Amino acid sequence: MTTPPVTRALAEWIVSVKDGDIAEDVRQEGVRTFVNWLGCAVGGASHETVDAAIRGVAPFSGPQTSTVLGRSEKLDAMHAALVNGISSHVLDYDDTHLKTIIHPAGPVASALLALAETRPQSGRALITSMLVGIEVECRIGNAVYPDHYDRGWHITGTAGVFGAAAAVGHAIGLDATKMQWALGLAASQSAGLREMFGTMTKSFHPGRAAQNGAMSALLAEAGFDSSLRGIEAPRGFANVMSDKQDYGEILDDLGSRWEAALNSYKPFACGIVIHPTIDGCQQIREEIGARVGAIASVQLTAHPLVLELTGKTSPKTGLEGKFSVYHAAACALLHGDGAPTAFTDEIVADPAVVALRDKVRATADRRIHEASVVIEITFDDGSTMTKEIDRAIGSRERPLSNEMLDTKFLRQAELVVGAADAERILAAAWAIEAASDAGDVARAARSDKLRSAAE
Amino acid sequence: MTTPPVTRALAEWIVSVKDGDIAEDVRQEGVRTFVNWLGCAVGGASHETVDAAIRGVAPFSGPQTSTVLGRSEKLDAMHAALVNGISSHVLDYDDTHLKTIIHPAGPVASALLALAETRPQSGRALITSMLVGIEVECRIGNAVYPDHYDRGWHITGTAGVFGAAAAVGHAIGLDATKMQWALGLAASQSAGLREMFGTMTKSFHPGRAAQNGAMSALLAEAGFDSSLRGIEAPRGFANVMSDKQDYGEILDDLGSRWEAALNSYKPFACGIVIHPTIDGCQQIREEIGARVGAIASVQLTAHPLVLELTGKTSPKTGLEGKFSVYHAAACALLHGDGAPTAFTDEIVADPAVVALRDKVRATADRRIHEASVVIEITFDDGSTMTKEIDRAIGSRERPLSNEMLDTKFLRQAELVVGAADAERILAAAWAIEAASDAGDVARAARSDKLRSAAE
Repeated sequence: MTTPPVTRALAEWIVSVKDGDIAEDVRQEGVRTFVNWLGCAVGGASHETVDAAIRGVAPFSGPQTSTVLGRSEKLDAMHAALVNGISSHVLDYDDTHLKTIIHPAGPVASALLALAETRPQSGRALITSMLVGIEVECRIGNAVYPDHYDRGWHITGTAGVFGAAAAVGHAIGLDATKMQWALGLAASQSAGLREMFGTMTKSFHPGRAAQNGAMSALLAEAGFDSSLRGIEAPRGFANVMSDKQDYGEILDDLGSRWEAALNSYKPFACGIVIHPTIDGCQQIREEIGARVGAIASVQLTAHPLVLELTGKTSPKTGLEGKFSVYHAAACALLHGDGAPTAFTDEIVADPAVVALRDKVRATADRRIHEASVVIEITFDDGSTMTKEIDRAIGSRERPLSNEMLDTKFLRQAELVVGAADAERILAAAWAIEAASDAGDVARAARSDKLRSAAE
Repeated sequence: MTTPPVTRALAEWIVSVKDGDIAEDVRQEGVRTFVNWLGCAVGGASHETVDAAIRGVAPFSGPQTSTVLGRSEKLDAMHAALVNGISSHVLDYDDTHLKTIIHPAGPVASALLALAETRPQSGRALITSMLVGIEVECRIGNAVYPDHYDRGWHITGTAGVFGAAAAVGHAIGLDATKMQWALGLAASQSAGLREMFGTMTKSFHPGRAAQNGAMSALLAEAGFDSSLRGIEAPRGFANVMSDKQDYGEILDDLGSRWEAALNSYKPFACGIVIHPTIDGCQQIREEIGARVGAIASVQLTAHPLVLELTGKTSPKTGLEGKFSVYHAAACALLHGDGAPTAFTDEIVADPAVVALRDKVRATADRRIHEASVVIEITFDDGSTMTKEIDRAIGSRERPLSNEMLDTKFLRQAELVVGAADAERILAAAWAIEAASDAGDVARAARSDKLRSAAE
């Protein structure tokens, strides 16, 4: 079987895409992706991982053109891309392309927005370039998933660098040959191991993918050449880094079928197996109002995996709270909360939350789907109610509404920059397509609330 | 079989090495490695690949602390490491660890010398850190070679990033845990595909390995954590990127047996299969003196591989000359030359060279070793002489003398910076161990002869 000229065909498509070529519903999903990404980047901006990254790279920063989102520091565009890619991923709260588990926006949007502050482009052009980059990233992911991931590669890093190269190459107007070089340079920087999960280096992967992908496009622009077949050559990306190569996933229906439109957004700042419980408890809270104070017991019935992963009955810290379906249920019933505010050290130790948490019981039942839950409430007067969640909010079947994205954005961002700044940044994010200078959105996301890491 | 704690043991060794722990003969090989590397970096400094790299990265350079070797530009230490790593490799003339085909100095020395200009250290300390880095790089290479290379990885990039991380981590005095983090960050940036051979991106690999390895150590110093088992974990470097993992190659006799002492240096600026022919023809020239003008014919007998790779009878350009055993023989007989000066467009078209080249014939004989050649000269008067080369100069059996390293250095460097500067830089390189500030050697290698790429 002859290998098709994948890199060439992909490069030709990338450089050909015009703003008007993309259907309005796809563009709208792009704006939602951008809003969700910016909220996560601001929400993660106060994390110690971000502090450490800035301490490490700041001595080598070039002209400080570009905003570190949610913070007061500025860095050169490449280092800002790195740090913003890190902060957008560090809370494990970013977007997900469910077919590949790629978190698409981190590498792509981080590269584009940082560069837009030194090489201005309109917000509409930025969304076009972002959709092109995400499309390339997810299609390359589809071509090698799951074998590539199973081998041990963190696919958000390995595919993300192509997405950033494609997006920035599109934004700066490379021709098709230079776009091939950019993809070749990206192939030779595709990296990131799953062994790093649980350490700061996991978040480093989307950040470095943003930085290295952007630099791949800029080097190609400067005349730095590379293979014209970086993806499909015998010693190229797909053959060296995966045992599966399905190039149809890259080339078929390019420009008509958009993987970028299938992006999804986590509603809650914790592992996905607790999401049905939080969703159900939030709905119950809406329905019963003040009777939350009259709950005698809560019985959860869920797939065994849910208890295996999140069966911690007495969490002591916010982080442990993320692994307690009991805490999550109590917090959703009492406060309607599943945002980062629901997983702080304070709320986990709050007496009212602890009291309700102690009334929650959970039973494993293999007949219930992993994405489902049955919640039975018994009140002090002996009355009961039952809530069954088949698929949680945030799943493909029940995508987050724009209002839910607002709530998600504000709840995490206000912890870092305060409520007023969070509202302001959110408004700027939704208005991205109307911005004559996309860099204005980045500058709107600057905040003086955090102490500089360099101090 | 239990996997040993490879990353931990290696990190503990790295941070423990003191200047005095390394035997004098190993240190001397280190100095020879440094001299050879610096000559190659200066010799490659005028290459268009270096121009393109500088054009691409200069807009993002931080404080211009560090010399671009052989040129007038300065860049921040990380970008100088990148560019010097590129220039040291771009002529394919750098050092070789023959067991793995790693070119060890590029990633390691490029990182150390650039950093020494902003965080000063003595020349003796720099050589110690360089030997530690090269040792780590070659041992990690040994653990996965040849399977890793056969899979398609450019091992100078993939192993080089560990070498740079180890060297810089040693130089800045990381503790063992932070050294483990640095190796983990390096593992997650290990990259570079053999598909890029024949393009500028091949030289990008040692450059990026230098930059990324250095940044791994600096991030670890800043508190950016990573896996403690980046090399040997099930989803770590060795398992994900190779089907062979021989950890004894990493840990056995650490500190007593030095792979770094086995480094070798190419005497000639072309593929290794022509080296016996150039060596033999240079010896003949020494022996026959003026009778070179009385040669009637030259008969080479060599392994078929030699003619397969370098059988071009009528090269038109300097680059084609590197693939012509006929040209190489003529040039060595006439001028005693195998340096980059022997592979310019001018010398390939020189009438005297062409006339002698047309008298060279070559025959393939499978009984002759790939590293050998038989050269039979017939003179105009009918007399003959025969020269057999068993192993060429530059091989493990016949290492280059210091004087030959001088000649190699000067012949390539003077093409770029002129004879006087080349002599001055060479003297500074040999005196590295006496330098109280290693950065002085980098500053000595600055030259105003080349036009800035940014102009």
